[in-house]
Amino acid sequence: MKQINCMVAQSGGPTAAINASLAGVISGVTKSQKYNTVYGSINGVLGLLHDHIINLTEKFAGNEKMLETLKYTPAMYLGSCRYKLPDFLDDDSAYIFIFQKFEALNIKAFFYIGGNDSMDTVLKLSNYAKKIGSDVRIIGIPKTIDNDLMMTDHTPGFGSAAKYIASSILEIAHDTFIYAVKSVTIVEIMGRDAGWLTAASALARNEYSAAPHLIYLPEVAFDKDAFLSDVKRLLETTDNVIIAISEGIHDADGNYISASTSSTDTFGHSQLSGAGKCLEYMIKENINVKVRSIEVNVLQRCAAHLASKTDLDESFLLGEKAVLLAEEGITASMVTLSRTGDNPYTVSYDYARIDEIANEAKSVPLAWINEKGNDIKEPLLTYLRPLIQGEVPVSFENGLPVYMNVSHLAKGNAPMNQL
Amino acid sequence: MKQINCMVAQSGGPTAAINASLAGVISGVTKSQKYNTVYGSINGVLGLLHDHIINLTEKFAGNEKMLETLKYTPAMYLGSCRYKLPDFLDDDSAYIFIFQKFEALNIKAFFYIGGNDSMDTVLKLSNYAKKIGSDVRIIGIPKTIDNDLMMTDHTPGFGSAAKYIASSILEIAHDTFIYAVKSVTIVEIMGRDAGWLTAASALARNEYSAAPHLIYLPEVAFDKDAFLSDVKRLLETTDNVIIAISEGIHDADGNYISASTSSTDTFGHSQLSGAGKCLEYMIKENINVKVRSIEVNVLQRCAAHLASKTDLDESFLLGEKAVLLAEEGITASMVTLSRTGDNPYTVSYDYARIDEIANEAKSVPLAWINEKGNDIKEPLLTYLRPLIQGEVPVSFENGLPVYMNVSHLAKGNAPMNQL
Repeated sequence: MKQINCMVAQSGGPTAAINASLAGVISGVTKSQKYNTVYGSINGVLGLLHDHIINLTEKFAGNEKMLETLKYTPAMYLGSCRYKLPDFLDDDSAYIFIFQKFEALNIKAFFYIGGNDSMDTVLKLSNYAKKIGSDVRIIGIPKTIDNDLMMTDHTPGFGSAAKYIASSILEIAHDTFIYAVKSVTIVEIMGRDAGWLTAASALARNEYSAAPHLIYLPEVAFDKDAFLSDVKRLLETTDNVIIAISEGIHDADGNYISASTSSTDTFGHSQLSGAGKCLEYMIKENINVKVRSIEVNVLQRCAAHLASKTDLDESFLLGEKAVLLAEEGITASMVTLSRTGDNPYTVSYDYARIDEIANEAKSVPLAWINEKGNDIKEPLLTYLRPLIQGEVPVSFENGLPVYMNVSHLAKGNAPMNQL
Repeated sequence: MKQINCMVAQSGGPTAAINASLAGVISGVTKSQKYNTVYGSINGVLGLLHDHIINLTEKFAGNEKMLETLKYTPAMYLGSCRYKLPDFLDDDSAYIFIFQKFEALNIKAFFYIGGNDSMDTVLKLSNYAKKIGSDVRIIGIPKTIDNDLMMTDHTPGFGSAAKYIASSILEIAHDTFIYAVKSVTIVEIMGRDAGWLTAASALARNEYSAAPHLIYLPEVAFDKDAFLSDVKRLLETTDNVIIAISEGIHDADGNYISASTSSTDTFGHSQLSGAGKCLEYMIKENINVKVRSIEVNVLQRCAAHLASKTDLDESFLLGEKAVLLAEEGITASMVTLSRTGDNPYTVSYDYARIDEIANEAKSVPLAWINEKGNDIKEPLLTYLRPLIQGEVPVSFENGLPVYMNVSHLAKGNAPMNQL
């Protein structure tokens, strides 16, 4: 019997792919020569602090069907958190507690699946482990629909969100083209600082639809006059103009284009709403045309029924890769995807030092945005296209997708499988 | 060679199923002993008035694959309109023009696929045909995601929208359950006067999720105090409360619960927005809890990738049935679905007089809503469940669903295949 154990947790915002990486970790541990049991910490590192831990090996090992369902289940099977670890030089009490818990469960590797803020946690735990001379391997597994993590070609979760956005824009185009009345439709897409997901809307273009006709990303300052003139010009030749914008578009002074006031969350992000609404009002006031704005809702990050097979397969393999790396003694790192070819599309599974990743964000290169700042260029499409390929065989029962039971997350349901 | 022709058009708001009925009409005409060619009028009756007509038999007949793609394409292949025919006693010029066009193309049957307002057009054309002694058969084919047409068990388009809503609520539940922080999520669903689609959110409930925990329909007056007390009570036992509301909920005096002012469209409907936002603010002001509102966007009516197979199959057969009825000499009617069994679910394809349908709306029976007016009862679930069954084999190419080319609808694309 293998002697040591490991632990996995999930953090940050949901994606359709984050459970695929969890399934990959569970699968990797089953194949592992080293790790016996993989525990799951519920609600990110909070599970460690609140002693809310489940035995994933017991639950999933050997049950291929259940692991498959987990792979296709949206959001976090283990729940999430927005908890930011304090600097351990200021306060190391949480760190002491966490590493005592690792000790108690004989945990020698900790996998944290998350985005930018979660990689900050990976960095801090890595630094602390180094400081105290712990041999617990700390490895991050990326996920974010924002695609803004450094050192990886793209992030798990992004391809599925991109596929959802492109499909939605195509379906919205069908919905919009039906009336013989000029109209403008503004589609607001998630993306605070990086425009990757909004750029993916361009994948919807085909032989009969040029939608989205205009694309505005947060990488370029938004200019009201240029915008109105873009729309007016287009309406001369096009009946139904569809516009994709990032929620985070802002003016040259850095002020968000937003119809509402903003507040801030734990990590200091502005909570945005209303860029689409703001542009809708702008057009209403300045152009005599039917106008509507659509805020694509949370399904853009959790519509697992329309996930990208490429995305989920890669996410799964990154989970397995993380286990392999830990076995090899790698720590203070994040697993990464390196693109080795566009046509045919190929990737290799690598890793990079976490201190080169945490707290940095990757924007869309300006070279991939057109000069007017209202569209993207072909190389960006070449980059995006492979990421949305393939559909996943989600099971349906009684007309609805079948996902993993998550009653262990919400209060008032089945009792927890606690240690 | 068959000697006479027929025509079909589409009107009102989009659904995922309205092209399935169009495919059914084309298929019915191919099988018909009587009708040679089926023409399509672009943008509803406006195509007749503006001489914008295409030959559908030429385009689709014998091409099973293309007919299949049409069946799975959302919104209207023939475009739509919101044109209301004047009373012919006031002004019969449009009627004279339309029936002259029928004469010129040797059209002896006219099929109009649409909702409540479109059935008003069917009634008017039927009455006019009777008045002038025309032998052109006028038959309506129902479609509306609102499910509010009389004399039919349910309407094409509703089952697909219901499947989308229930799946979305389930995916939103997964998205919401991940944080160990109490929250309220309000999901605003289309439905001005009838709550059928909002009621379908209840289909999302399963062994691990009771979402939506509360359901408010326009059939019952909305009471702010009762609402806030419902939410407070639930938050005592449930971490993440999800609430489904119809856009058309209103108070006891009939005032819409809306955060914005309203204007009216051609048919005198109030243009609503913001019931969800309004309830979000209400909770923010009165309960100390994280709250968010989601307005389900137009995908609820056009997400063909998640359509109900039951819905599309029935819609197709209703199209074929309409052709058969016209052949038999039936006119001034709408094809209908009569439920003949719940378990197993069976329907028969019938018809009803248009004057018993037009300008009437079918609400959710009060007997199917609970006494508190914040949930639905089991018989409504029994009614709804069969309608979302089955998935459709939408083709994907390059990661995106493949739909029919609709370049004939939007200005600036491929030239029209006009007569």
